[in-house]
Amino acid sequence: MTLDNIKEEIEKAGKIVILTHESPDGDAVGSSLAMYNSLKQLNKDVDLIIPEYPETFSFLAGAEKIKKDSEITNYDLAIALDAADIKRLNGFAKFFEDAKVTINIDHHGSNKMFADYNFVNPDAPACCQILIMVLQYLGVDITKEIGTCLIAGIITDTGGFKFTGTSKETFEFTSWLLSIGVNVSDVYRKVLEIRTKENFALMRIAIDRLELLEDGKIAFTYITKEDEEKVQAKNGDHDGLVDIGRTIEGVEVSILLREADGFFKGSLRSNEYVNVSDVCMMFGGGGHIHAAGCSIHLPLEEAKERLIQEVKNYLR
Amino acid sequence: MTLDNIKEEIEKAGKIVILTHESPDGDAVGSSLAMYNSLKQLNKDVDLIIPEYPETFSFLAGAEKIKKDSEITNYDLAIALDAADIKRLNGFAKFFEDAKVTINIDHHGSNKMFADYNFVNPDAPACCQILIMVLQYLGVDITKEIGTCLIAGIITDTGGFKFTGTSKETFEFTSWLLSIGVNVSDVYRKVLEIRTKENFALMRIAIDRLELLEDGKIAFTYITKEDEEKVQAKNGDHDGLVDIGRTIEGVEVSILLREADGFFKGSLRSNEYVNVSDVCMMFGGGGHIHAAGCSIHLPLEEAKERLIQEVKNYLR
Repeated sequence: MTLDNIKEEIEKAGKIVILTHESPDGDAVGSSLAMYNSLKQLNKDVDLIIPEYPETFSFLAGAEKIKKDSEITNYDLAIALDAADIKRLNGFAKFFEDAKVTINIDHHGSNKMFADYNFVNPDAPACCQILIMVLQYLGVDITKEIGTCLIAGIITDTGGFKFTGTSKETFEFTSWLLSIGVNVSDVYRKVLEIRTKENFALMRIAIDRLELLEDGKIAFTYITKEDEEKVQAKNGDHDGLVDIGRTIEGVEVSILLREADGFFKGSLRSNEYVNVSDVCMMFGGGGHIHAAGCSIHLPLEEAKERLIQEVKNYLR
Repeated sequence: MTLDNIKEEIEKAGKIVILTHESPDGDAVGSSLAMYNSLKQLNKDVDLIIPEYPETFSFLAGAEKIKKDSEITNYDLAIALDAADIKRLNGFAKFFEDAKVTINIDHHGSNKMFADYNFVNPDAPACCQILIMVLQYLGVDITKEIGTCLIAGIITDTGGFKFTGTSKETFEFTSWLLSIGVNVSDVYRKVLEIRTKENFALMRIAIDRLELLEDGKIAFTYITKEDEEKVQAKNGDHDGLVDIGRTIEGVEVSILLREADGFFKGSLRSNEYVNVSDVCMMFGGGGHIHAAGCSIHLPLEEAKERLIQEVKNYLR
């Protein structure tokens, strides 16, 4: 079975590299660091390469050891975590391609099974949740530090134990983490609650402009490039803005249009019955049933109009 | 032991009444309905009296059976849930006082131990969490419906598994609820995520006015009576407004002043080290370390100034 192969390959590997997806979130950084700290515990020679990651996660053990690049290309073993596609390894596919053996551990339904050994479980709400079993199988002692990395990923990808994928195992594991002294509340706050001043400034603008349309079933708002420049927004500062609309009673679909270079990126969220992935496919985009995106090469008012027309077809 | 007495009294009681605290929240309504449904399962003759409760909780089993009042005064047994003080039973203390035997099940540290049998555990993050053990002891089969009532209270009082009181048992029980088919995500969304249009309108105003003071360590905002009238706010629509400020990076204390009849109600939240209960005590108020309140009989600008002066003494 795959876990046996993974164990064997890790045991015999000399130099190991860990990689994750571009624009890494808490599950990407958390799973990578959990694996990094675990392999260190097993006395392996390991590099973790993430060119850039949100400051938010710098509190996790081992974060100071993350490399931005590496001189080595011919690693004995490359492990990709939380990445659905080798293309998403963000310029670091070379480390993966050039490694003697490759492992892919992930929870995306769309995973391309691009490694020698693929351990992929689309039912898991986070890559970090898959790692619990993998690390136990490897004989790793899940310490407070490793547990903290894992829960950071789980909290990120379950929206704080909120999304439907959150499972029996998620809660069981979290209960166990508390028993070994992991400060789950603290991680929750650091990972999910604290927002940057720039994110707050964008939120203020987005909320100010938010309109309720179609009898309150659609919440619409937008952010321009000028807004982002004005508040000096950094990468990721628009995160979560589309979610505000979907918390208002009666809203089924929340839409955020965000200006990019010469076009608008649409982010859509639905609460119950509208498949926003279908809506976005009409514009060449896609995603999941309740969360999807697309790019629209039209001016703001037309983009808004077209999107709303399309969403209207799905409203009850 | 108290649980034996509670069991015995419930077994021998004819007519039972359940009461909870005024301005009932999810833990008050959830624990009351969990107890109501459980006693019904045990074939007891029971009334649940809550004169008014937020519409949010009407999806819980048995909500349609809640009475606004009762003709009976001499109940055989009265059970108070989630109430720290008999005075908080909101005009319904009479049912409690006139009952032959009384039981008080609660998790407030300040509980006045006002009943014949008091089962109070201040370490529990929710009254609903205490009920798990009580109901098991009573031999109740915790069904999906009863479990849903319990998790509604737990999610409310732990802020969605976020606050520090959230325990090993909280997560263990939630895991078990999933195994019996309770839709935890759905309860989460109904109880915590959905906000009324009026709450959203007040949030927009509060965010628009929010100022970061003292090097970004204090977030300050306010809501006037005129604002509430303008957006036609109902009771409870200002809930959560003070929490927005404390999510901004660098903020230690978030302050909301809300205009009441001729004075301002101050709500304070802190993130790490400031004891806002101490701050509020200077104004005759109080509360917990990270969440407290007070009333200030001064005009807005002066009330703001005085509060900020006081908070400054605690900032590092």
